[in-house]
Amino acid sequence: MSTLYIANNRTEDMVGDLAAQTEEERRFAGAGAMRMVWFAKDDDIVVLPRLPEQAYLDYVTSMTRTRLSSLRLIVPPPGEIGEDILSPDRLLDSGFLAELRDAVADRTLAEIAPIYPDAAAVAVARTLGAEDALPGARFAGQGGTTMINSKAVFRAVAAGIDAPIARGAVVASHREAVAEIERILADGHPVILKKEHQVGGLGNEVVSRTDGVRPVGASRVVVVPDRAAVEAYVEDRWNWLTGDRHDRFVVERYIEGSVSVYAEFLVTDDGVELLGQGEMTMSPVFSGLVSPAQSLSGRQVAELEQAGRRMCEPFRDLGYRGVLTPDAILTPDGELLLSETNARISGCTHLYLAIAECLGARDRLGDRVFLEQGGWRVPSFGAAVDLLDRSGLALDLTTRTGVVLVCDMSRLDGTVRYCVVAEDIASARRMQQELASLPVAAAV
Amino acid sequence: MSTLYIANNRTEDMVGDLAAQTEEERRFAGAGAMRMVWFAKDDDIVVLPRLPEQAYLDYVTSMTRTRLSSLRLIVPPPGEIGEDILSPDRLLDSGFLAELRDAVADRTLAEIAPIYPDAAAVAVARTLGAEDALPGARFAGQGGTTMINSKAVFRAVAAGIDAPIARGAVVASHREAVAEIERILADGHPVILKKEHQVGGLGNEVVSRTDGVRPVGASRVVVVPDRAAVEAYVEDRWNWLTGDRHDRFVVERYIEGSVSVYAEFLVTDDGVELLGQGEMTMSPVFSGLVSPAQSLSGRQVAELEQAGRRMCEPFRDLGYRGVLTPDAILTPDGELLLSETNARISGCTHLYLAIAECLGARDRLGDRVFLEQGGWRVPSFGAAVDLLDRSGLALDLTTRTGVVLVCDMSRLDGTVRYCVVAEDIASARRMQQELASLPVAAAV
Repeated sequence: MSTLYIANNRTEDMVGDLAAQTEEERRFAGAGAMRMVWFAKDDDIVVLPRLPEQAYLDYVTSMTRTRLSSLRLIVPPPGEIGEDILSPDRLLDSGFLAELRDAVADRTLAEIAPIYPDAAAVAVARTLGAEDALPGARFAGQGGTTMINSKAVFRAVAAGIDAPIARGAVVASHREAVAEIERILADGHPVILKKEHQVGGLGNEVVSRTDGVRPVGASRVVVVPDRAAVEAYVEDRWNWLTGDRHDRFVVERYIEGSVSVYAEFLVTDDGVELLGQGEMTMSPVFSGLVSPAQSLSGRQVAELEQAGRRMCEPFRDLGYRGVLTPDAILTPDGELLLSETNARISGCTHLYLAIAECLGARDRLGDRVFLEQGGWRVPSFGAAVDLLDRSGLALDLTTRTGVVLVCDMSRLDGTVRYCVVAEDIASARRMQQELASLPVAAAV
Repeated sequence: MSTLYIANNRTEDMVGDLAAQTEEERRFAGAGAMRMVWFAKDDDIVVLPRLPEQAYLDYVTSMTRTRLSSLRLIVPPPGEIGEDILSPDRLLDSGFLAELRDAVADRTLAEIAPIYPDAAAVAVARTLGAEDALPGARFAGQGGTTMINSKAVFRAVAAGIDAPIARGAVVASHREAVAEIERILADGHPVILKKEHQVGGLGNEVVSRTDGVRPVGASRVVVVPDRAAVEAYVEDRWNWLTGDRHDRFVVERYIEGSVSVYAEFLVTDDGVELLGQGEMTMSPVFSGLVSPAQSLSGRQVAELEQAGRRMCEPFRDLGYRGVLTPDAILTPDGELLLSETNARISGCTHLYLAIAECLGARDRLGDRVFLEQGGWRVPSFGAAVDLLDRSGLALDLTTRTGVVLVCDMSRLDGTVRYCVVAEDIASARRMQQELASLPVAAAV
């Protein structure tokens, strides 16, 4: 039994117009897509935007105890926007589809698992005569995932089921936008503007009546001393806020000093299963995560998991199947407010469905903390593996602690993204410091 | 106990850019909004785009046995797009809101009932401190109704819950559009294109490989002999299909000779209640209706009502409250396929919630047929009432048959929209013919 993984990291639903992404954004998205290899087991097929380095493949499959030679890795020809993103045109390429059919012919295809289950992924499934192998294909095939990932739809549904959200509105016109921004500013609060479709805080900006507000989960703060400044801001940023098309966008009270948290679920025919929860570090946009969330009390964890599950249920009723991750903020007052829902294999799914397996399955994770971060400067991925091995910091399956190398950015900016597994957050931070202080030069 | 009715007939969610509507479209929409008077009972408040003619007010309130003097009719000052539509700027007018607060101060406000429950209607409720009086205000206030009225969302949800729909797709790019159109044409079928937001078939066009296809529920048929013609069509109509912004649109197999039917429900906190079902006449776009649907067998009626109810449930779970009307087509093969869902007081709600009351409540309607049609040429609405009275065709509360004047278009095109109530469709058609043959000139 094989699974077909499709590493379609970044779709228009996720980030808006793909062609408008910078070269750098696309290259990092492409590197992030490589994490899909973490999910692969013997005989699986993985469709990737580029072929990862051999050192990455060797390392990941050794960690997951997968026979690399049994995997079929397929890379479609470059597409209209290059070779970092599995854009729909690449997934429709006839040579690629022939190669895929050939790979499938040798195997019993049990499931198709795209990062983002959209119509292009369903079209691939259909070509293989295997639509039933893609969970929720009917819904995804008619654009349903677009709807769930909309931050506008999120607010309507959260409000509709009376889940806690920050004060604000979904707006479609200059007038509504200015009115809502002014309404919140007038009460003495800064305001966060959220594009309908973007990821990792990249589609968010804060406006404030006064100076000195720190942006977290947003790319910048704009000071708007008066109504005229708000009008000018909305006018100036209109195309950006509406995704250069005619998206709606969200205007919300921005609560300084809040912590970003999430609860991740797997939505299946059988129900809604909790995968895990955690905390995102923003500097100022998404940079890393800690799981479980350290800032939450036991009561707050229960509250987050319950509110998150309530968000998943109506989307499950609509027909969505796959990973669903409601995000929330914990305010300085200890209030939990849901902030968005992402319907895709997320930046933390590999922790729960792959790295957890290395440690001995998901239900024995309660005694471990994950700390994932990018930015370990290394000469190459292979050198990072060697260095880690020699340092004694590599994941030890007996102690179930140590460092795992998650993602290879070395060819882009000379870094590797890693995950520290430890008994508690203090030990994790210590290990992180040890890692940072390793004599990297020696490994070159 | 009073209800506040807001006759916001036509919103951007319903028809796209309001400013892009023609003068004629706006004027007819404004005349249609007057139907709201049919719902009013003693002491209610009705917000209207214009004040209806006295003859219309006298007639409707006499039919509904409402004391006209007890009603408070409020018309906000003209707005950016004139005085035919209750555009959001009109609903925010401070003079209007003061007048409304004054009206509410005299009464106990039990419910707020807009035609279209959107954020602008919720803003009015909020101004009155009466958000709780607007059912589903939380969902509607965050743009939820926009989502439900989207034909793209409709297809995703219908597919997701495995309700029957025509073959097709939701598309967001030229490539997807051309591919799906070609896929359906290649199988020998014409294709209907549906804008995400439009009403009454005005946002639909048919393309066909061959000549001679008759458009029903669509404004025209375009012949596209080959793929190049399809590409040219999509290119040419792109702005129209995407609502001059960046909406998605629907590409669907067009099944010639189908009949358009609907099932209308009232979605409340308590559940999903069937109001009625019927059949739409298209010539080629929406012109009138017959209730109950005459083309459906008993089994098909049950099927329509069941499929319609299934469409309502998930939207109720999301938080929508109000009238919800799934439409369907009955194909020549006897198949029922759902085609869209409208979340608003529809063009038939008055039949079930107002005219039915005149006849002695909704549950005694099983023995009557409604046939509603526009186009009775009259000198004025008052003259039409007189003529009807003298002719003996006016609704008789003893026999529970006769003609009801629904809507006054006389100042626009010299016609009145009417509804024949009869024991069966044959009697209704006979009455319709008698009405048409009345010596109108004599009434002048």
